[in-house]
Amino acid sequence: MQQFGVIGLSVMGKNLALNVRNHGFSVSGFSIDKPEVDALAKYEDDKLKPCYTWEEFVDSLEKPRKILVQIMAGDPVDQTIQKLIPLLDKGDIIIDGGNSNFHDTNRRYHELKKHGLHFIGMGVSGGEEGALNGPALMPGGDKEAYEEAAPILTAMAAKTEDGRACVSYIGPEGAGHYVKMVHNGMEYAIMQEISEVYDIMRKVAHKSNKEMADIFAEWDKGDLNAYLIEIASQVLRQKDDLTDDDVIDHILNVASYKGTGNWMLEDAIKLGTPITVVAEAVLARFMSKATTREGKEVVYDGEVASDLIDNLGKAMYLAQIVAYAQGFQQLTMAAKAYDWELNYPAIAQNWEAGCIIHAKTLYHIEDAYADGKQLDNLFQDPYFAGVMEKNLPALRAVVKLAAEAGVPTPSFSAALNYLESIFNPSLPANMIQAQRDYFGAHTYYRNDREGVYHTEWYEEK
Amino acid sequence: MQQFGVIGLSVMGKNLALNVRNHGFSVSGFSIDKPEVDALAKYEDDKLKPCYTWEEFVDSLEKPRKILVQIMAGDPVDQTIQKLIPLLDKGDIIIDGGNSNFHDTNRRYHELKKHGLHFIGMGVSGGEEGALNGPALMPGGDKEAYEEAAPILTAMAAKTEDGRACVSYIGPEGAGHYVKMVHNGMEYAIMQEISEVYDIMRKVAHKSNKEMADIFAEWDKGDLNAYLIEIASQVLRQKDDLTDDDVIDHILNVASYKGTGNWMLEDAIKLGTPITVVAEAVLARFMSKATTREGKEVVYDGEVASDLIDNLGKAMYLAQIVAYAQGFQQLTMAAKAYDWELNYPAIAQNWEAGCIIHAKTLYHIEDAYADGKQLDNLFQDPYFAGVMEKNLPALRAVVKLAAEAGVPTPSFSAALNYLESIFNPSLPANMIQAQRDYFGAHTYYRNDREGVYHTEWYEEK
Repeated sequence: MQQFGVIGLSVMGKNLALNVRNHGFSVSGFSIDKPEVDALAKYEDDKLKPCYTWEEFVDSLEKPRKILVQIMAGDPVDQTIQKLIPLLDKGDIIIDGGNSNFHDTNRRYHELKKHGLHFIGMGVSGGEEGALNGPALMPGGDKEAYEEAAPILTAMAAKTEDGRACVSYIGPEGAGHYVKMVHNGMEYAIMQEISEVYDIMRKVAHKSNKEMADIFAEWDKGDLNAYLIEIASQVLRQKDDLTDDDVIDHILNVASYKGTGNWMLEDAIKLGTPITVVAEAVLARFMSKATTREGKEVVYDGEVASDLIDNLGKAMYLAQIVAYAQGFQQLTMAAKAYDWELNYPAIAQNWEAGCIIHAKTLYHIEDAYADGKQLDNLFQDPYFAGVMEKNLPALRAVVKLAAEAGVPTPSFSAALNYLESIFNPSLPANMIQAQRDYFGAHTYYRNDREGVYHTEWYEEK
Repeated sequence: MQQFGVIGLSVMGKNLALNVRNHGFSVSGFSIDKPEVDALAKYEDDKLKPCYTWEEFVDSLEKPRKILVQIMAGDPVDQTIQKLIPLLDKGDIIIDGGNSNFHDTNRRYHELKKHGLHFIGMGVSGGEEGALNGPALMPGGDKEAYEEAAPILTAMAAKTEDGRACVSYIGPEGAGHYVKMVHNGMEYAIMQEISEVYDIMRKVAHKSNKEMADIFAEWDKGDLNAYLIEIASQVLRQKDDLTDDDVIDHILNVASYKGTGNWMLEDAIKLGTPITVVAEAVLARFMSKATTREGKEVVYDGEVASDLIDNLGKAMYLAQIVAYAQGFQQLTMAAKAYDWELNYPAIAQNWEAGCIIHAKTLYHIEDAYADGKQLDNLFQDPYFAGVMEKNLPALRAVVKLAAEAGVPTPSFSAALNYLESIFNPSLPANMIQAQRDYFGAHTYYRNDREGVYHTEWYEEK
């Protein structure tokens, strides 16, 4: 009998199956797409069993069955679940490793509970390579079901610098997919920030692709150490297959998206979370499609301060932390709204290796939340408060320079405005409340006494 | 027989009923809340009939009946509709004047059609005073039903400077409530902008409330002429009832919301519309609730340029136009997505008086879209292109000063970044696409040839 099953054998599913097998566990693989099974069959051995029917697959697994469904999110997941329900036994565990919307996962979790089955919605990050060599895993659902699968998930997951697995129990219902959604929203934000740094370096500092690649590589050795910084460097070094140019100069500047960042923003609107950097990153992708492209190129020939690159690095580090801070702020507000107990240091640890946003910063975040520390905002932690104080002048300088040069910096501007707002005792929202009370009698609270007030505004009417 | 009926007689419904009567039409009023009917009964005459039962109310109306439902959005509207269906005759018209979500209006429109009834979802703006003296009306639904009600709606609506009514047929299904939603999103944006101007004037230019009131009043005489500018001035002059201070200094700086701006952002996420200023305004309200308020007050004692107030006015005018441009961009994209034919000059005209966002700018917007002109973006129009060119330096100066002084300007920053992006031929989204292809094999388009491409990025693996 096999210890683990995988349904869906395209690149991700196949690589995850091989990953399990490579860690000494026996695994069965099945797909409704026969050529995918044929492809897996090339790796067949006593630990790896390709299956061509639902029944063969299900019957090959030891109980309680642990079945990873690694297929396109949406209806196919529901169809697969419906197919499995009559074939499974009480206590069996279905793990959805796709990028499912957490609302769907909530629903499926409760539906399967009625059938005596466990459902784990599990975020998986790391792309094809991570799937094979160690992804970050974010499983949510029943804790006891997670414990059943934990030995295998722990073996296959990426490992932190000090050898801890990038997987842990996230929380009930769709909490795992929620955390993956937040991961992806932060990914949008950090990628937008990197694109703005790239834009300033080429437009304002007139750096070549090679020079920019070297700068990103240098940054990757310091505080900014992060997968996305590393690959920004590699992207800028890559030659084109079709011309003699660098490939970056031939890639169309229209950003696509599959929408998990958008989902994070949708839920922020419901929760009331001010995730401005994520919002600007989502809308910047829309802008890249909506721009009419009929304008003039930005040509900046003003003076460039000698510390520009240094400032860009410092500003990028602070802006990257703002992206993480907003992500954790949303997790904190979601935990409260959805009554989930989330383990923030464990979530940070899950992201320390294997996933797209892994970065040295995450070790600091794990520390910030260690020992059950409760933070409304990551910048309440002394380390991050220190970075804010130290790097804020650089972020201000970059935003000012970009405004001067005419280079748009939506995510950097949002990061700066966020930092100027989160500990601000005197935001000007009293003007908004006054106007609302003026035209709509919406009432207001006061800053000097309890109760709800309304002013009769028009004296001369 | 009465020519018009109103269900729901709280302030808005009562004032709208009186407005109809004051324009010479006969009207019946009904509410399930008897004291509301009693209150209307004080105005009873041969043109105004208070009704105490559903049957009395429905039987008092000439056919086809025109019934305005002016109650809280949500379930109460559905309950009222269910109550009315068996009492009405084919061809009768129900008009929902509340702030209903356009998705609900779409659904109700199609449901009532099955019963042979017309449903008009109508945005109403102008508050209590507008309801009585002339609101802006945004009716959507069946055109022939609108035509039936048009004489009454036209009479009761606000009038533009040159005497045209602020009402016209918007489009099918929930188009009327959609346009009202966009109105409200722009309202959030402009109010946020005003609050930021207020913040800079007090924190950076050290102006008193009286001085700021005078500045807003002065602006209201020029290009910036707008209801919200006018009332900003009046708000700043208002004395407190409970202390000797100005009331603005005692209003708590936490902004509330009923959510129509949030809905606009939710739909922007679906449509892919880059309405960054609206987004920042929505999130700034969240921020005003989420801020920890444990920081220091901003104290700016740097140099203040002599043209600061002039720059603030110019920047505000441009930023206000960005809010309108984003609103019309969303309407344009919604019209395409939902297959609505929207009449943009008529929508601008509807907003020229009576509503919260009415402003001199709307006459220019009406001109920009006149004669069936199609614009992807309002700034393609020569008048607005001119304002952008003339006022962009002021907006840049304000954003730079705010960054220097530590005053958050989320909506001004977003307005500037929007303007730097909408006609930008070289946004840096190629870096985002390169990274997506690197870690997820998501492919990319090229700028020099057709087709979809993928690069094998890792050479040394």
